[in-house]
Amino acid sequence: MDVRRVENRERAVVLVDPALAEPVLETLEKTTGRTVERYTETASRDLDAHVASDVPIIYVGPDLPESLRSERLLWFHSTNAGIDALLRSGAWPAGALLTRTVGGMGERIAEYVLAWILAECQNVPAFLAQQQRAEWRRLPSELAAGQTALVYGAGRIGTRVSTLLRGCGIPTVGVARTARAGEAGVDETVAVDTADAMLGQARWVVSTLPLTPETEAFFGPDRFAAMRGATFINTGRGATVDLHALAASLDSGALRAAVLDVLPEEPPRPDDAVWRLPRTVITSHSAGITAADDVCTDFAACWAALSEGRTPELAVAPARGY
Amino acid sequence: MDVRRVENRERAVVLVDPALAEPVLETLEKTTGRTVERYTETASRDLDAHVASDVPIIYVGPDLPESLRSERLLWFHSTNAGIDALLRSGAWPAGALLTRTVGGMGERIAEYVLAWILAECQNVPAFLAQQQRAEWRRLPSELAAGQTALVYGAGRIGTRVSTLLRGCGIPTVGVARTARAGEAGVDETVAVDTADAMLGQARWVVSTLPLTPETEAFFGPDRFAAMRGATFINTGRGATVDLHALAASLDSGALRAAVLDVLPEEPPRPDDAVWRLPRTVITSHSAGITAADDVCTDFAACWAALSEGRTPELAVAPARGY
Repeated sequence: MDVRRVENRERAVVLVDPALAEPVLETLEKTTGRTVERYTETASRDLDAHVASDVPIIYVGPDLPESLRSERLLWFHSTNAGIDALLRSGAWPAGALLTRTVGGMGERIAEYVLAWILAECQNVPAFLAQQQRAEWRRLPSELAAGQTALVYGAGRIGTRVSTLLRGCGIPTVGVARTARAGEAGVDETVAVDTADAMLGQARWVVSTLPLTPETEAFFGPDRFAAMRGATFINTGRGATVDLHALAASLDSGALRAAVLDVLPEEPPRPDDAVWRLPRTVITSHSAGITAADDVCTDFAACWAALSEGRTPELAVAPARGY
Repeated sequence: MDVRRVENRERAVVLVDPALAEPVLETLEKTTGRTVERYTETASRDLDAHVASDVPIIYVGPDLPESLRSERLLWFHSTNAGIDALLRSGAWPAGALLTRTVGGMGERIAEYVLAWILAECQNVPAFLAQQQRAEWRRLPSELAAGQTALVYGAGRIGTRVSTLLRGCGIPTVGVARTARAGEAGVDETVAVDTADAMLGQARWVVSTLPLTPETEAFFGPDRFAAMRGATFINTGRGATVDLHALAASLDSGALRAAVLDVLPEEPPRPDDAVWRLPRTVITSHSAGITAADDVCTDFAACWAALSEGRTPELAVAPARGY
């Protein structure tokens, strides 16, 4: 079944996660020109009785129900950006399209990164504490402009982060699997080896990496030991970081501070040692929360691309993992 | 005595505040090509015995000693940006040049403003509190991009603030005494009346105003009442704000939050009610701390301008007050 073949898409039924908000459903109905149905447990218990077995299925939701992970699946649009858990949980149905929601996430994550960089430079935590104590004490700030940032991951999100930091006068080097053209020092994207050699000069090391077999524990003892007073900010995936190596480099001082939006196991238990890492902030996987609008807009963009015979920009190559 | 007359400057002695750091002195000596002397209490008790009465005086420091506030003063270079207290404390000696240090202050204050805008959008205080309690709770962020900022004061500092905010996608309107050319919605600077009419639409109201007779209690009941959920950030001078009006608008909800770097009386006592204003942060006059480098660079720029027969850009018109 090929989603790009108009007759397949025209015949398809659109099912969605039962928790999807009503306005999202209505927008999806407008986009697809058909009734959109919540995929309830009743329906999932006997799919064939519910949808004739020769009707292709389009599904929209945060996860793909096991009952739909079959040759009948034409297209799954994820309401999240990260699809690593989905791909890890089994083989992807041959020929089925997988797209994801990025929406304003690049913009949101970029502002998140900048917010925590500036919070450190401007002593935001110290001033909040002084305020509690009614204490007047001048604290000199650190200028963020002029200090180097390395941003690992040069996809839609990493690129937005780099662009925003550069706009604030922070010399920012993007890091991808292979180097890309761009003016050196302005918008250059370097390969991992080149970036790793710069870790000792970076004031900020930001990760937006997806989780793939190659990026698991990517930030381990070697990379953390190479840092010299950098602050590490992770907005990608928790399992790309070896937490023991991170803790050791915080102890040694190679790492100045850490801001972790994501953790290998979420949520951590209240007694998890990760909460007590020195000079570390944990932000509960909040940097890139998708809004309902994002889902509608990104689904519509995918639909439009398919209607024009193009592969949607938000399509994931299941074998590659992003 | 005219500082622009070469013979006056050539004959002048350079005195500095005794607390000025040694490297600053050395740099001032290089710039002026003469010995620079700390103006100690001993010297100030009998100035004429110390410096012949026909020798003009150049002074560099945070304050101008009363003993030098005379016709003998050729030029006072302030190591601060704000000179309102100096001008309030008496008539300015006729013909004496007054210059000030701005240095990287525009850049620093711009990053301060952006830091506190993003700290609010990204729930930085709430995440720091959650971290303390080992609490994992997702908090959706607010996008700063796209929400209007009004920046009162369009001098060197206000302009830097506006430029940085615009670079982050925040539509920013500068406010000066009179409107200035610029592309509407991009880099426009409007007059106070126009800006006041926009207070209800602004998400951020930033003040970089100097203190002059016209700006005293500039932000009073009318302007605060006109706000509709804005956050007010003051990096200018404390006395430009009527604190009672600010408190009332925080209570009514017209004002969402406040970030005050400056206060009418500094430092406030620990029992001052200002510490207990709701949704307010106080940052101990730290947004634009001058660095030693700033003093040297700005003094040298003034010196170079005078050598070329120009009025230094950092010269203050004593009658105008900025």
